[in-house]
Amino acid sequence: MKYLSIIGSTGSIGTQTLDVVSQHPDQFKVVALVAHHNIDLLEQQIKEYQPLVAGLVDENAFKELQGRYTGPTKLVGGKEALIAAATIQEATMVVTAIVGAAGIEPTVEAIKKGKTIGLANKETLVAGGPLITSLAKEYGVQILPIDSEHSAIFQCLEGQDCDNVDSLIVTASGGPLRTWDSDKIQTATAADCLRHPTWNMGNKITIDSASLFNKGLEVIEAHWLFGFDFDHIDVVVHPQSIVHSMIRMKDGAILAQMGNPDMREPIQYALTYPKREVLSMNHLDFTKALQLEFLPPRYDDFPALRLAYEVGRASGFKPAVFNAANETAVYAFLDDKIAFGDIYKVVTSVLESMGPEDDFTLDNLLAIDRWAREKATSLMV
Amino acid sequence: MKYLSIIGSTGSIGTQTLDVVSQHPDQFKVVALVAHHNIDLLEQQIKEYQPLVAGLVDENAFKELQGRYTGPTKLVGGKEALIAAATIQEATMVVTAIVGAAGIEPTVEAIKKGKTIGLANKETLVAGGPLITSLAKEYGVQILPIDSEHSAIFQCLEGQDCDNVDSLIVTASGGPLRTWDSDKIQTATAADCLRHPTWNMGNKITIDSASLFNKGLEVIEAHWLFGFDFDHIDVVVHPQSIVHSMIRMKDGAILAQMGNPDMREPIQYALTYPKREVLSMNHLDFTKALQLEFLPPRYDDFPALRLAYEVGRASGFKPAVFNAANETAVYAFLDDKIAFGDIYKVVTSVLESMGPEDDFTLDNLLAIDRWAREKATSLMV
Repeated sequence: MKYLSIIGSTGSIGTQTLDVVSQHPDQFKVVALVAHHNIDLLEQQIKEYQPLVAGLVDENAFKELQGRYTGPTKLVGGKEALIAAATIQEATMVVTAIVGAAGIEPTVEAIKKGKTIGLANKETLVAGGPLITSLAKEYGVQILPIDSEHSAIFQCLEGQDCDNVDSLIVTASGGPLRTWDSDKIQTATAADCLRHPTWNMGNKITIDSASLFNKGLEVIEAHWLFGFDFDHIDVVVHPQSIVHSMIRMKDGAILAQMGNPDMREPIQYALTYPKREVLSMNHLDFTKALQLEFLPPRYDDFPALRLAYEVGRASGFKPAVFNAANETAVYAFLDDKIAFGDIYKVVTSVLESMGPEDDFTLDNLLAIDRWAREKATSLMV
Repeated sequence: MKYLSIIGSTGSIGTQTLDVVSQHPDQFKVVALVAHHNIDLLEQQIKEYQPLVAGLVDENAFKELQGRYTGPTKLVGGKEALIAAATIQEATMVVTAIVGAAGIEPTVEAIKKGKTIGLANKETLVAGGPLITSLAKEYGVQILPIDSEHSAIFQCLEGQDCDNVDSLIVTASGGPLRTWDSDKIQTATAADCLRHPTWNMGNKITIDSASLFNKGLEVIEAHWLFGFDFDHIDVVVHPQSIVHSMIRMKDGAILAQMGNPDMREPIQYALTYPKREVLSMNHLDFTKALQLEFLPPRYDDFPALRLAYEVGRASGFKPAVFNAANETAVYAFLDDKIAFGDIYKVVTSVLESMGPEDDFTLDNLLAIDRWAREKATSLMV
């Protein structure tokens, strides 16, 4: 039996994690559920999974929940809820399914309590890579990727001698603007970007997918998860999102992980690892014709990807600033405050105005994350 | 340093094995080379690789070689040459790169001498599966597949817990007749069949590829190599021959091995296993656009594949008869003695005229192999 704490339980990854849990009630027990503000869904989840602890980060929503709920689950509210779920004694594994830099602190706290991390929050490693990986090493904690690309690489690497592996190949759907003309891309609307061809995800990540910022974040995440330098991480556009990622072996052979685009597969692999269990979903069916395409990314038209390699190689706080500025700009874009092409410009400007870097501590990381958000916001008024 | 004996050194697999050897002179030393009759090429190979022993199976060619060659390599001739190469004391690994049932006896002898087997002769396991696998177990000998499909499965299985694997998926190019009308297939000529779209191989295997007999043989080979029952081995047509084969995990995830169709990759993997080394060849290049298709086999139009499952499930000597009758019929087809559609008919007739089966011994296997060839020949006069 594995005891799970799910941070971000009402989001896309959170609900799919609970679907996997429901498929294997004999193997998983949910001990904590935390969401941001979706009180109705969280209340429903509390009834169904009866966790020891549940909470909402949004203070108003939390107060309403307190008024409504009268069962045995202990309620927690505000940012404290994240830490409570990350550190709850009964959990053996913490699934970090929230989006954005808010995932960093609870992940740090969960590692310090020796919890296995099911990592769906890519910002944790993008921004906090040096800190998180050294902490995980210090506390002997395993970080299991939930992102489909990283899960695919993790699956391909399973049992392989690392000396035999040459490089990682991260696939990218290319997003909804993949075939657009260069000049049209700059003025794509939020509605254009939210029509993702293959994956059904949250809004922020769908915009990142359109700009290839998401793929850039994933390249940096792959660097920290698997310890490959940036010269040995490639990106290939694969519009069908069936090959979730690949590894290239020293002899040139490629190992790939494939499946229909359904996050329950990588989620379940992280949850059952190192075992695999039957998963009820619409699996890849070779009795029907299937066509797969691969092509190189349009680096010039989607410059965020090249920038990700640059900040990744620079290391230090640059990836954190890249991530924070992008997150701020994406929400401004979703609010119709800036154009699609401005997201990249805002991120570049914020990176350019960085001062000398301090030591890589959590406090300094959170401070520079705040600074980058404020700086980005100031550029957009 | 690995010491190699190569049986079938002048054929397609043999010459490519030597190319791999030449790429890593510090890792491999060739101690024996045996071919059928290609005296010129063998002589050249003897000069280049200076084996301890070399030979030709064809007696006339062997006599000519004896007249020509005056160097230090010991010459052997006739069927003895196969056994000499299989059992030579200095070899640590025997590569069985000859085509047809002639590969069975030397493989048995090599196993009895504890040699690691680099298996490119698929007939050995198709016909002799029960014997070969039990001998390999008895002598603690590893059989490393060289066929691209089996190497792909072997690569995918590497390091995986077998409990996590659901099934094997063998890919098939579909051969040159893949898109032909049902009735036209029956009368395809040898020239039609020898235009293989992706792989450059010997004639016999190319005809087998056109009829899907080859894929049938590979399904049976996969059964013996990896111990999966026939309900857990699937075939998928993949015309580009880039995905060399796949495995389906218990949770539905697919692991695939990909690469350009070049036998040096699986050959080198068998030779360097469990290590991998850099291989100089034209590798799969994702900076260029790539399209891959997958579709189900046309079982009714290429009935050999369904028949292979039947004889494979029946086990005993049926797969040996299936193989021997096919081999005989293919050479008759190549000699313009029968039509393409007759190959399947001959095999079916020979299978139908089998009597009760004896114990599975090498002698009985070789006897029924001879019987099947004679029976097939008698049906074609």
